[in-house]
Amino acid sequence: MTFVERLREASRRNQSLLCVGLDPDPRRIPAHLGGGAAGVLAFCAQIVEATADLVCAFKPNAAFFEALGPDGFAALAELLRMRPGVPFILDAKRGDIGSTAEAYAQAAFDALGADAITLSPFLGGDSLEPFLRRPEKGCFILCKTSNPGGGDLQDLRLADGGTLSMHVARLAASSWNANGNVGLVVGATYPGALAEVRAACPTLPLLVPGVGAQGGELEAAVCAAVDSAGEGALISASRSILYASGERDFADAARAEAARLRQAMRAALAQGAPQGA
Amino acid sequence: MTFVERLREASRRNQSLLCVGLDPDPRRIPAHLGGGAAGVLAFCAQIVEATADLVCAFKPNAAFFEALGPDGFAALAELLRMRPGVPFILDAKRGDIGSTAEAYAQAAFDALGADAITLSPFLGGDSLEPFLRRPEKGCFILCKTSNPGGGDLQDLRLADGGTLSMHVARLAASSWNANGNVGLVVGATYPGALAEVRAACPTLPLLVPGVGAQGGELEAAVCAAVDSAGEGALISASRSILYASGERDFADAARAEAARLRQAMRAALAQGAPQGA
Repeated sequence: MTFVERLREASRRNQSLLCVGLDPDPRRIPAHLGGGAAGVLAFCAQIVEATADLVCAFKPNAAFFEALGPDGFAALAELLRMRPGVPFILDAKRGDIGSTAEAYAQAAFDALGADAITLSPFLGGDSLEPFLRRPEKGCFILCKTSNPGGGDLQDLRLADGGTLSMHVARLAASSWNANGNVGLVVGATYPGALAEVRAACPTLPLLVPGVGAQGGELEAAVCAAVDSAGEGALISASRSILYASGERDFADAARAEAARLRQAMRAALAQGAPQGA
Repeated sequence: MTFVERLREASRRNQSLLCVGLDPDPRRIPAHLGGGAAGVLAFCAQIVEATADLVCAFKPNAAFFEALGPDGFAALAELLRMRPGVPFILDAKRGDIGSTAEAYAQAAFDALGADAITLSPFLGGDSLEPFLRRPEKGCFILCKTSNPGGGDLQDLRLADGGTLSMHVARLAASSWNANGNVGLVVGATYPGALAEVRAACPTLPLLVPGVGAQGGELEAAVCAAVDSAGEGALISASRSILYASGERDFADAARAEAARLRQAMRAALAQGAPQGA
């Protein structure tokens, strides 16, 4: 099965567009788990177990593991050995050239065993190629990010009249998707941009961070991100789920918040769908 | 001392613009060192010891260590504990937002102890801020990369007439360098772009990969990259030094090649300098 097929299967089975971002901040992990990489691993593993039937994917964030040094990197590898029945998208935003890009692909897909990765397009098509050439793995390419400063480059107006973000979207849909494994990252904080990207790329999966703690409006994001079948969107929430209680019951609280978000997305879709559809 | 002061001190002490890139490919490491992370660490440590008095910096490449999994990440941490008397620039090309960018800064500067890092500008100024706010650490921001595909985005013509690369160069020199710790990455394979960046950013350190195995012409790159004092350039070579012999004498061969490149750079500068200067 290709990555896109596995993602679609998981999303249909769990009837979910929710992707849970695993951004474990040691300062916010319940005290009873202990500190350090062992605590972070236990925390993430329990979140995964508590929510695996409610989500379409998990998105572990490499930075929070690397910040803990070698033990953190080992914890990330251990976490990715879980088999929760939905894909792990490694949020790493890698981007480099030649043999270095090959080494990053090896790190993410082979050493860590991730099912997909987030990538930066700044170094161009040949920097993406070592990832793109593996159809069983997914490549989510940064297009329009959720942060205020994202516009410093992404909103620049090109001589042809479009923005840099839309140029990336068109390259992704045309040149870079030869193996059918490309998606785009578009922040929920800009629903207008999301709709524009979806119109230009009707079939690409869109990974949409920025709902919840970052303030993106859920309903608008869902309706703008899905494809014509009401699928193909991964709406990602992290902190609002991970730290729903901050106490000993964190996994139950995370499950409740994940269930609430999943249901809110389904309701948004039902409401946003054309009448009679 | 700030990062830029430490870099200048190292460059003057060793009279060198050479930066040795540490991109250890296990397939090319001499067999007697053994395989895996231990072999990679031994290889890099001997390269560092053999060349530390000939260079202005070392540039370990995170990808090659991550490709070896947790043991590779531990080897990177161990390598960075060496104190060779010149800075370690972690070539990681990170770029992410908010608390994730803070975690990457913590990973590079605290968990690994790097003196500087390479960063992607695609996510804008706020994504760089957690790195920029530490004047004792250096931030080399991708501007014009050495690979053929670099132009896919970087050469795009903006509505104001310039290229994306030059827009990044101007942002770096104006907004992002408030703490005096910003440099730019500009490939040796495009000496015209190098000269244009140097003209727009007369005082920023320029990290220039792409000589040697990538085919960039050394003399042109050196003369285009240095500032008006003949300093402020880090000309990076990796494979041509690391694998100069591929045999048991690799460290001696690396030292000889590093000495040759260092001398060729000094000769290029002497020849390129205005007569009577």
